[in-house]
Amino acid sequence: MAHSKGTVVLAYSGGLDTSCILVWLKEQGYDVVAYLANIGQKEDFEAARKKALALGAKKVYIEDVSREFVEKFIWPAVQANALYEDRYLLGTALARPCIARGLVAIAQQEGAQHVAHGATGKGNDQVRFELSCYALCPKIKVVAPWRLPEFYQRFPGRPELMDYAKKHGIPVPVTPQTPWSMDENLMHISYEAGILENPKNQAPPGLYTKTCDPANSPDTPDVLEIQFERGVPVKVTNTGDGATRSSALELFVYLNDIAGKHGVGRIDIVENRFIGMKSRGIYETPAGTILYHAHLDIEAFTMDREVRKIKQGLSLKFSELVYNGFWHSPECEFLRECIGRSQEPVVGTVRLSVFKGQVYILGRESPRSLYNEELVSMNVQGDYEPADATGFININSLRLKEYHRLQSKVTVKQDE
Amino acid sequence: MAHSKGTVVLAYSGGLDTSCILVWLKEQGYDVVAYLANIGQKEDFEAARKKALALGAKKVYIEDVSREFVEKFIWPAVQANALYEDRYLLGTALARPCIARGLVAIAQQEGAQHVAHGATGKGNDQVRFELSCYALCPKIKVVAPWRLPEFYQRFPGRPELMDYAKKHGIPVPVTPQTPWSMDENLMHISYEAGILENPKNQAPPGLYTKTCDPANSPDTPDVLEIQFERGVPVKVTNTGDGATRSSALELFVYLNDIAGKHGVGRIDIVENRFIGMKSRGIYETPAGTILYHAHLDIEAFTMDREVRKIKQGLSLKFSELVYNGFWHSPECEFLRECIGRSQEPVVGTVRLSVFKGQVYILGRESPRSLYNEELVSMNVQGDYEPADATGFININSLRLKEYHRLQSKVTVKQDE
Amino acid sequence: MAHSKGTVVLAYSGGLDTSCILVWLKEQGYDVVAYLANIGQKEDFEAARKKALALGAKKVYIEDVSREFVEKFIWPAVQANALYEDRYLLGTALARPCIARGLVAIAQQEGAQHVAHGATGKGNDQVRFELSCYALCPKIKVVAPWRLPEFYQRFPGRPELMDYAKKHGIPVPVTPQTPWSMDENLMHISYEAGILENPKNQAPPGLYTKTCDPANSPDTPDVLEIQFERGVPVKVTNTGDGATRSSALELFVYLNDIAGKHGVGRIDIVENRFIGMKSRGIYETPAGTILYHAHLDIEAFTMDREVRKIKQGLSLKFSELVYNGFWHSPECEFLRECIGRSQEPVVGTVRLSVFKGQVYILGRESPRSLYNEELVSMNVQGDYEPADATGFININSLRLKEYHRLQSKVTVKQDE
Amino acid sequence: MAHSKGTVVLAYSGGLDTSCILVWLKEQGYDVVAYLANIGQKEDFEAARKKALALGAKKVYIEDVSREFVEKFIWPAVQANALYEDRYLLGTALARPCIARGLVAIAQQEGAQHVAHGATGKGNDQVRFELSCYALCPKIKVVAPWRLPEFYQRFPGRPELMDYAKKHGIPVPVTPQTPWSMDENLMHISYEAGILENPKNQAPPGLYTKTCDPANSPDTPDVLEIQFERGVPVKVTNTGDGATRSSALELFVYLNDIAGKHGVGRIDIVENRFIGMKSRGIYETPAGTILYHAHLDIEAFTMDREVRKIKQGLSLKFSELVYNGFWHSPECEFLRECIGRSQEPVVGTVRLSVFKGQVYILGRESPRSLYNEELVSMNVQGDYEPADATGFININSLRLKEYHRLQSKVTVKQDE
Repeated sequence: MAHSKGTVVLAYSGGLDTSCILVWLKEQGYDVVAYLANIGQKEDFEAARKKALALGAKKVYIEDVSREFVEKFIWPAVQANALYEDRYLLGTALARPCIARGLVAIAQQEGAQHVAHGATGKGNDQVRFELSCYALCPKIKVVAPWRLPEFYQRFPGRPELMDYAKKHGIPVPVTPQTPWSMDENLMHISYEAGILENPKNQAPPGLYTKTCDPANSPDTPDVLEIQFERGVPVKVTNTGDGATRSSALELFVYLNDIAGKHGVGRIDIVENRFIGMKSRGIYETPAGTILYHAHLDIEAFTMDREVRKIKQGLSLKFSELVYNGFWHSPECEFLRECIGRSQEPVVGTVRLSVFKGQVYILGRESPRSLYNEELVSMNVQGDYEPADATGFININSLRLKEYHRLQSKVTVKQDE
Repeated sequence: MAHSKGTVVLAYSGGLDTSCILVWLKEQGYDVVAYLANIGQKEDFEAARKKALALGAKKVYIEDVSREFVEKFIWPAVQANALYEDRYLLGTALARPCIARGLVAIAQQEGAQHVAHGATGKGNDQVRFELSCYALCPKIKVVAPWRLPEFYQRFPGRPELMDYAKKHGIPVPVTPQTPWSMDENLMHISYEAGILENPKNQAPPGLYTKTCDPANSPDTPDVLEIQFERGVPVKVTNTGDGATRSSALELFVYLNDIAGKHGVGRIDIVENRFIGMKSRGIYETPAGTILYHAHLDIEAFTMDREVRKIKQGLSLKFSELVYNGFWHSPECEFLRECIGRSQEPVVGTVRLSVFKGQVYILGRESPRSLYNEELVSMNVQGDYEPADATGFININSLRLKEYHRLQSKVTVKQDE
Repeated sequence: MAHSKGTVVLAYSGGLDTSCILVWLKEQGYDVVAYLANIGQKEDFEAARKKALALGAKKVYIEDVSREFVEKFIWPAVQANALYEDRYLLGTALARPCIARGLVAIAQQEGAQHVAHGATGKGNDQVRFELSCYALCPKIKVVAPWRLPEFYQRFPGRPELMDYAKKHGIPVPVTPQTPWSMDENLMHISYEAGILENPKNQAPPGLYTKTCDPANSPDTPDVLEIQFERGVPVKVTNTGDGATRSSALELFVYLNDIAGKHGVGRIDIVENRFIGMKSRGIYETPAGTILYHAHLDIEAFTMDREVRKIKQGLSLKFSELVYNGFWHSPECEFLRECIGRSQEPVVGTVRLSVFKGQVYILGRESPRSLYNEELVSMNVQGDYEPADATGFININSLRLKEYHRLQSKVTVKQDE
Repeated sequence: MAHSKGTVVLAYSGGLDTSCILVWLKEQGYDVVAYLANIGQKEDFEAARKKALALGAKKVYIEDVSREFVEKFIWPAVQANALYEDRYLLGTALARPCIARGLVAIAQQEGAQHVAHGATGKGNDQVRFELSCYALCPKIKVVAPWRLPEFYQRFPGRPELMDYAKKHGIPVPVTPQTPWSMDENLMHISYEAGILENPKNQAPPGLYTKTCDPANSPDTPDVLEIQFERGVPVKVTNTGDGATRSSALELFVYLNDIAGKHGVGRIDIVENRFIGMKSRGIYETPAGTILYHAHLDIEAFTMDREVRKIKQGLSLKFSELVYNGFWHSPECEFLRECIGRSQEPVVGTVRLSVFKGQVYILGRESPRSLYNEELVSMNVQGDYEPADATGFININSLRLKEYHRLQSKVTVKQDE
């Protein structure tokens, strides 16, 4: 046993990797405090606590951050219609800064100078964890074993990890490992690596865990009404059975149930990691997918066109920052404030149908709508003068005519 | 009959409105040439020709522009992943400049100084038609009866139009009118106005015409492989029955069939018109929806991350310009060239499943892929040094730490 | 005299044009209330009042809006570093919504249903005036004589206007008219039209009125220290004579004096009007030019790099909106709030020299600076690990190497 | 002497630092090839060659890349109006990828596996050099002594370097070192570090070397006519003495002379480095400053408004990429092609005056101008219908009125 290096707070998952890391950190001379955030993943938290203590953790913190995750991280993403590279709803990327916040808080409480995590050296999560930690507590030192040669050279593959586990009394999973890796939280689950690394390989049938196969999903839709205030869902009503949910966490869990039952939220994509490589991921984001569609709709209904356009640009940037791990940065904070400001009028109710892997918008209403039925009507003139459109078009055509004039000049010249 | 005002080329649809306009234009003293573009709508073109001639058209041109529509207008939109306000695939907006091009060409051929159309005074199509016409032929004069008081005050509603039709021997539709209006072309069909003007009203069951109700669609998917070159589909293969299509038009028609059969491509949205009002539209874009998903996927697979980000910004702008009617403008031309340039490496094949209203990407391959399986692998180190990520993260955190330092200073001051 | 059309509030300048319009409006049957905003132009306001009353104005309002102009319109532009098309500091564009606000307020107070202005039918100012009026009071009716055929056909040129003036006892300017038109306010003066319409013609020597010819300006600079809070100047100190100014209006006037004395703020540009034509303008913006440079400097010193980049994009949009007349719009309001939020840390003092037409930044300091002298020092390592830069560079090069790999593949293929 | 590590090509400057590095690299076991790019800096190249050989360089390559620098690097920046953070004309940033290209070419020619440079570990230049090298030759290994602990710990300051020089017979500069560091090339010279690290300190009088103090510059301007084709200057004529220059390099040198004589191109800024720290730099960019103003002017005159706006966004991104070292990247290549395409109509002549630190645009003309004197004239109606502007404004106001309607509703509610 080496000389004490002080206390490290480890982002502990209860799985094989972080269990081995826990023991290895002790071996290196750290006092290890395990921090396990309940962020909605399926996990036996009490078993994990016992395991960590059995492996020598000085203390174990298990903290339920689900509500905070929904309210402080998912809701801003819903407001932003956040989407990375047109497809990814950022389920993992949103969870990391939430966990990191808890991790750093415990480190400060425990007077620990180090935090550690089990993220690999090629991924985005290492960046997301660490940028969050450094932003929140610049003096913290991060221990990332998967980037330390003394660790990754000792454990080049799973067999070596298993050996180590057996030698140190670390419980080894009894079920055979899936040939891919998973990461789950309340918002989504990701599948990547292993057989999925070949981007041509189709996801095997048994892979999905959060959503039903649309082929086997119910033959009748669930029709929901989702009510928004300031761009955030505040109530969901199932028009079939009248069920309602209105607290943030319960509402989100309920949407996960409904969407999961109807197979909503599956994607298979190739994305660009921050560190510069392309990777393939399969994701399930059930509630997030419903909310993406519902929010887009109520926003389009209530927000001015030009404000929307500006906000869309901000959201693109926001999504990229979140993906890259910059949640806790001045620019991301700035964007959240701006986007939040834009959501002030985003109030109203969207009616939608969830069916066979799809979300169908059926209608919407709002006390803050900018939609003017009389103005737009084809049967009523309303407060609208058709002749104005003539002037509008003519003036808009001025520039185009001038350009044509020039082009003709050029073309004529070229023809001579 | 007034003194001759010269020749006008009318964008004729064969329907009640443009038939009345044809007669009315004659009444105003124009020689009317009818121009009917076959852009993939379901229409009895020969009947329309006879009708126009019977109503007094001097000449009737019926031109099949479907192939041109696909190759010159839809393909650039596919390359751009063009989407207006995050949802609308621009089916009508793409058709207008294609029709206008034909209209102007006929006007020039006929030595006509005027063109006319039946678009209303509150919509986008008047703008799209006219900006295209003026851009292509600055000297042309546009007659837009629905914006002329002498026309729209005479025909405040459908009854007056019916009366006029009866009086002038204009055949009146025998089937009762749908309580909404439709516009169809090869790419999509739109439904709006009438009972749809209340944005809360759900689309009635019988409305859809291009796609099957997903509730009644087949219980087994069609699995397709779509091959792209320069960002454009060049071959589609149905892995089920081995059917293939490779000419642009046939390929697009085939995708319409498959998507239509599986209920793919329905949306119900509120959008912002160029003239500044919000309107509600319901659209079906079967083939366009499949191609949107397929192209997004092959592009992500083959295009550099940063090029993609720049191109995404250009596409946003492109979509807005197309929606607003600026297809034939210097800026839209510039964007098409830039986007086209970005598509050079977008080559490869996407495998996808079409099922119950959804398109599921299953896998992809490409000779120009930037995906590096060895580099990204979690099991192989490849040509990658994990320690580099430490430096990368540390340098990225510098700025965040500095900001924290400043913030603390400020906070401390505020606490004093 | 026609039947009374009610009251119109006319944006009156005291000049020939709006005097003729005043009389003409009366002739058309309006009761005319004259509104003259003192926005810093050189004008004998009392003479203008008498003139308007003599011409038959029912009432005359002369309102000093200079302070409001500086605080509510110029300051947000300074915060934004607002610049249209990379060069124009928006002096006229900022004044219009300020005047329009006063105009509408008087109309509401007087119960007038109309407002009128003397802006021409080809310019930007008509748009700026009217969009502001409609945004602030949607029911107002705007009378724009220069767009009414009965007016502009009657007055095709200056001689007809002079005749009309003489006939109606409207005082005619005694000094010969300059062969260009001018528009002045506290922020700037513009020169356009007449002999300046030929973009090749150099501005004649005697044209400039707000700034000294740099060839004749003092041979010693004035060195100023400008102190900012929230991105707005709060104090200026002349280090030469110790003069200070700290109220917004006085500070701005003082900077106009200093800049004018040293010939700072002249530009000659061709710009793009909102209505789609290019026009040539010569502008003098003395204080605005100093503040543009000073604010850029203090902002760069105190604002995070990435926040700055986002804010720069917002400012580009803001400048375009202001130019086009959308100051009083939801999107411009949104941008002002976002930009305002970004200015919270923009605090500190910039030292600069004003000399021979130029502004030279000499140094800056700030309690909120993000500049870290120790961190950046070439002589001190500070809290910086050079090896981290290696990792940073290597990771950033990953993507470039991958691209090269692909390109080589392609090139090899092409060579085969 | 260690075992041979193979050949390294060193970017050699002839100065103390790279001379010491040359010797140190030999000490480490490398065969050193010195590469000295003549990129317009003032340097005795033959003396440098002798020095390098004397210090043990195996070979010395001195390559004049000035013309290439102007044509392939500066010209694209002129076309882009490239400006980093609104102020910096990128003089150093443009030179690095040009030098790196030569460096890599020599390495390939010599079969060397390594390149080395003397850039520090905190700056931008290390990034620019290395990203360029890796992009052009992914297999190259970069040796950056200032980031190697064995080097930078041995030479913590200048005294240790001087000692080393004396011990190894490296000639030591005879003139006392300036208390700041400089980097020069044809386009600009930068001053930073040392006493300039305090951002409040004014640049000392004797610092500037490329431009005359405006206080002592000539009392009469030089008036130039600069002719552009495709956005690139092709001829400059001095209207005073009739001097002309038309080859790229000579033209640029001539503009440097004229601008330098009149004190044009000095700035003092705080900028954001790529690695995340703010730094203070003082720059002189004489010819670049003239060309920035001239190109802005001819571009505004000939380019469509909306194309310009899109191009402006691309240029912002381009400038950031160049600053950060990504010249040789797929995205920067893409941007250069897009920007290049936009320059096709940028043809014509700008007349300007250079005087006392300033560039004044006097007029411009072009066969490709989009400026239409008749259309814009205040005295001629031209092909313009003023009534159209009414429709244009009314339609533009629709959205604003709707927003006001909503806002009133909200306000009323709040008042209740």
